[in-house]
Amino acid sequence: MKKTNVLIDCDPGHDDVMAILLALANRDRLNILGVSTVAGNQTLDKVTLNLRKLYTYLGIKTPIAVGSDRPIIKELKTGDFVHGESGLDGFDFPNPTVEVDSTNALLFMRDALLNCDEKSVLIATGPLTNVGLLLRVFPEVKEKIDYISLMGGSVFKGNVTPFAEYNIYADPEAAHIVFNSGIPIVMSGLDVTHKAYITNEDIMELERLNGKVTGMCAKLLKFFTKFHTSEGYKNFPLHDVCAVMYVLNKDIFTGQNLLVQIDTSDTLHRGRTAADLREWITHDSTNTLALLDVDRNKFIEILFDAFEKLDSELA
Amino acid sequence: MKKTNVLIDCDPGHDDVMAILLALANRDRLNILGVSTVAGNQTLDKVTLNLRKLYTYLGIKTPIAVGSDRPIIKELKTGDFVHGESGLDGFDFPNPTVEVDSTNALLFMRDALLNCDEKSVLIATGPLTNVGLLLRVFPEVKEKIDYISLMGGSVFKGNVTPFAEYNIYADPEAAHIVFNSGIPIVMSGLDVTHKAYITNEDIMELERLNGKVTGMCAKLLKFFTKFHTSEGYKNFPLHDVCAVMYVLNKDIFTGQNLLVQIDTSDTLHRGRTAADLREWITHDSTNTLALLDVDRNKFIEILFDAFEKLDSELA
Amino acid sequence: MKKTNVLIDCDPGHDDVMAILLALANRDRLNILGVSTVAGNQTLDKVTLNLRKLYTYLGIKTPIAVGSDRPIIKELKTGDFVHGESGLDGFDFPNPTVEVDSTNALLFMRDALLNCDEKSVLIATGPLTNVGLLLRVFPEVKEKIDYISLMGGSVFKGNVTPFAEYNIYADPEAAHIVFNSGIPIVMSGLDVTHKAYITNEDIMELERLNGKVTGMCAKLLKFFTKFHTSEGYKNFPLHDVCAVMYVLNKDIFTGQNLLVQIDTSDTLHRGRTAADLREWITHDSTNTLALLDVDRNKFIEILFDAFEKLDSELA
Amino acid sequence: MKKTNVLIDCDPGHDDVMAILLALANRDRLNILGVSTVAGNQTLDKVTLNLRKLYTYLGIKTPIAVGSDRPIIKELKTGDFVHGESGLDGFDFPNPTVEVDSTNALLFMRDALLNCDEKSVLIATGPLTNVGLLLRVFPEVKEKIDYISLMGGSVFKGNVTPFAEYNIYADPEAAHIVFNSGIPIVMSGLDVTHKAYITNEDIMELERLNGKVTGMCAKLLKFFTKFHTSEGYKNFPLHDVCAVMYVLNKDIFTGQNLLVQIDTSDTLHRGRTAADLREWITHDSTNTLALLDVDRNKFIEILFDAFEKLDSELA
Repeated sequence: MKKTNVLIDCDPGHDDVMAILLALANRDRLNILGVSTVAGNQTLDKVTLNLRKLYTYLGIKTPIAVGSDRPIIKELKTGDFVHGESGLDGFDFPNPTVEVDSTNALLFMRDALLNCDEKSVLIATGPLTNVGLLLRVFPEVKEKIDYISLMGGSVFKGNVTPFAEYNIYADPEAAHIVFNSGIPIVMSGLDVTHKAYITNEDIMELERLNGKVTGMCAKLLKFFTKFHTSEGYKNFPLHDVCAVMYVLNKDIFTGQNLLVQIDTSDTLHRGRTAADLREWITHDSTNTLALLDVDRNKFIEILFDAFEKLDSELA
Repeated sequence: MKKTNVLIDCDPGHDDVMAILLALANRDRLNILGVSTVAGNQTLDKVTLNLRKLYTYLGIKTPIAVGSDRPIIKELKTGDFVHGESGLDGFDFPNPTVEVDSTNALLFMRDALLNCDEKSVLIATGPLTNVGLLLRVFPEVKEKIDYISLMGGSVFKGNVTPFAEYNIYADPEAAHIVFNSGIPIVMSGLDVTHKAYITNEDIMELERLNGKVTGMCAKLLKFFTKFHTSEGYKNFPLHDVCAVMYVLNKDIFTGQNLLVQIDTSDTLHRGRTAADLREWITHDSTNTLALLDVDRNKFIEILFDAFEKLDSELA
Repeated sequence: MKKTNVLIDCDPGHDDVMAILLALANRDRLNILGVSTVAGNQTLDKVTLNLRKLYTYLGIKTPIAVGSDRPIIKELKTGDFVHGESGLDGFDFPNPTVEVDSTNALLFMRDALLNCDEKSVLIATGPLTNVGLLLRVFPEVKEKIDYISLMGGSVFKGNVTPFAEYNIYADPEAAHIVFNSGIPIVMSGLDVTHKAYITNEDIMELERLNGKVTGMCAKLLKFFTKFHTSEGYKNFPLHDVCAVMYVLNKDIFTGQNLLVQIDTSDTLHRGRTAADLREWITHDSTNTLALLDVDRNKFIEILFDAFEKLDSELA
Repeated sequence: MKKTNVLIDCDPGHDDVMAILLALANRDRLNILGVSTVAGNQTLDKVTLNLRKLYTYLGIKTPIAVGSDRPIIKELKTGDFVHGESGLDGFDFPNPTVEVDSTNALLFMRDALLNCDEKSVLIATGPLTNVGLLLRVFPEVKEKIDYISLMGGSVFKGNVTPFAEYNIYADPEAAHIVFNSGIPIVMSGLDVTHKAYITNEDIMELERLNGKVTGMCAKLLKFFTKFHTSEGYKNFPLHDVCAVMYVLNKDIFTGQNLLVQIDTSDTLHRGRTAADLREWITHDSTNTLALLDVDRNKFIEILFDAFEKLDSELA
């Protein structure tokens, strides 16, 4: 079977790391063209450092490209309240020896896409700054993108505001470009990511396995759950993992084709992925497959299998 | 048992008329202090004329007060595309002989509320212009209002825009005043009113009964369904009836206490009743009971009983 | 010569007091129907108390009516940073013995206007909440208003924000109603009020005169100048006085007929009186005479004559 | 004397052409690194074609780079109502034989700037899309830009709206990036460009000269004046010329250092270059030298000398 080309754009971040691990464990199915970074969960410097540390620790490597250090128009507000000072608190990584391969993610992404004969899937798990700029600056790449699988947005409820999810809220103007690009969007919004949760029991299971990857994940997740518990969450959504999981296992998700507009106003709805839900209207032009549900047991099972596979590989 | 004092503020309108009929049939339980009119489904002149025609036809009367001919801040956009040229097309009413009792609904409503020893329920089935102005100009009435049962808004989807329902969209600034007034709000939004629908079979049943009221309703509803069918609706929501029905039969409804903000911006979300649905947040201060479901069979049964009761009374 | 009927709507306030004094000194030319209060420079309770104190101190009285305690839509932000804790700091007034005549300024204003055979001039020196609500709730008064002479707005620069003046910023929605009412507006904005300034030398002159009114004004102005000096002002604009002065002495002012729109958005321009200055466009429908310049020497001379006249009257 | 490096970003366009001619005539003082195009006065294809036609006709050439075909976030609205179907109506140019040198203006501009030892001046006479994207995508160029001399905006009045000038209105989000970049901005807004006008007499003088360049300009300007006359203009502002003229002859201009914010909201002020004019405030951080006046006689004299110089060179 032919491998699927993927580019991963992210801001690691705890759940970004899990998403990358899932991809790395599936290199037999995915041709990972590279991983680009963007300011979001933490500053660009920190999230790039996190990626280098992860790769150093794993001894695995894909090309790394450094992207935008701020949103396209408005100022950066990081997600440090969730991910801690480093953006990846909870595990003690070695000093990074892995270097970045490109200091301009846009040029890197353009070349990676254009150099493939086949179309690629663009996976985005952070603010959409890099992706939005890429589509505006190098529109010739559009025809080389099969679809964009992104973590962000929400049909029904937000997190950083009552109505907006963090990744979209962090750069709504970039999201506006992406959702209006004509490229099919698969949106793993909070609707589905809150159903793709991990429990304390699951984390204990990882702790028990205690391999190179499972042990690291256990420690990272213990930190990750602290913020969520303090916010009132009962379970811990592995948001970013969904965007990779969908590419690998579409059949465990269900969703709905919708017309989604991005609210770029400076009002209470800033950053809302506004979906037209009127079922009595004929919608000629939906732009988004909004994932709404997932088989959580299979989700966790597949994810843990991936972690354990990496445990073996790296043993 | 003590009667409940009610003031009805409305813009008749087909479904407003059904709501008024339901109230009139229940005068043993409701003390109807009066009915005030507001521009909305049609211009103020037309909706006031419709009320006078209805009362003339029925030979029943409550005090009538004439309210605002336009929203508080922005311009009027009527709902004539739904309700026709007269605002109540479909039935041939006699010339009105009933006169209005007050040309200033605000003074009328103030006096009506203050003159009651008990608190009253304010039922609103049109844009909230009168109610908003009343609360701002005569804040002393607040303590005489038990709660406001209104038809308007929507938690999940709009009608005139993808996100906003007509009554709120027509005067969001008035709605902002009402929802922030501290008075408990029971919101019959599209979430529940789309479940309080009438079918073609139901309308045929009214036609068969063909009494003074059932026959009139059959004719009015036949016109009402024309617009809805052309818009793609399969059934015909009796929106405004819900606001009266809730006062009489709370137990056939279910809902959720929510914090609802009104979007008054001139953006794509103008007029949205923005509800914070985050279940993991502790909401100290909800302001709205949003009705979300209704037992439709009971709803229609109670409504038809009311119509038939009026048929008998007026025979 | 026939007297001009005037209604004064205000939020006293140092410069409001000077405006009222100018009117009181000209009762041979002005028929003061009453003075209504509105929240602005300070809370409604405080500004109403200030008016009662002033009248008690002077031993003069016009009808007093109490108006709105908050803007129509958004929350109140007082101007206490300018006018101090009482809203009229700097002079030690006696306990008020003068009572209010009406607790509902809207009803009072309506009656006052409708009871005059001639049209009246509405003078407004605070946020336009009362005036806006009056025009919306009792539109029948419109034909009894000759024009509205208001202090507020600015063509070229703001004060509370770079672009908005306080009175308009405090209730832009009310201003929107007023400027779109069809009633001619004479706008004493910052453009002219900054030229209607008083100097430290002028204040010393008042101090030297030291009559019942001149002495009081000297003390009030000394407090008033403190804020202005700290903000970087070199002189001290007697904003509100302009709105009364124009009614009495139109010829010392120059201005321009403009189409002014009120910005009610929640953006950086909120509360801006946006004037179309394009001289190459044919403007069919201007709504505002924006005063832009004043003969300051005559302005101060007339004002001081008024103060001294009151000194004599009250001696 | 050392030449000044300049990059010209434009959307030719009648006045763009005059601006380019002024630069070309001064190649002894300006080192023109290249000219990039952007959608604005007309579509990208048309304005690029216009530049190629101009260079073909002149037999002169600088590098040409093709930029953005649309604004960063919102949709394109061209200025075709001013500049005609071609964007440069009025003169019959030969078929272009000059080719473009780069199909990606951003890469071209980056390389041009980084390859110079000295800083360059960036001249922008169209919407700021290319410049905004350049600064976001290749922030390393910032230190190689001395200042940005741009035609756009207005302190006092707009053209396409009462408050906004076309170039800024066409892409306010790009302008937001540019004005907040930290690079000094010299803004030739309508305040000064309306004083840099040409008269019918001036155009007749060009017609009389009738050289290769003066004759072409006469014909182009005759078309240009048609729109302006129909709009009510008495004279014809050579907007874009100011941005080049300032680089060559700073001393014929006067202006003011101001803090300018770009309004990116979707309200009546969209695209306004909002300048804080409060002279009593200490402005620590101005970002813009807003040109406000120009010696028109010298302006025209210098411009005509340039045209005649080109006439001679190309004879």
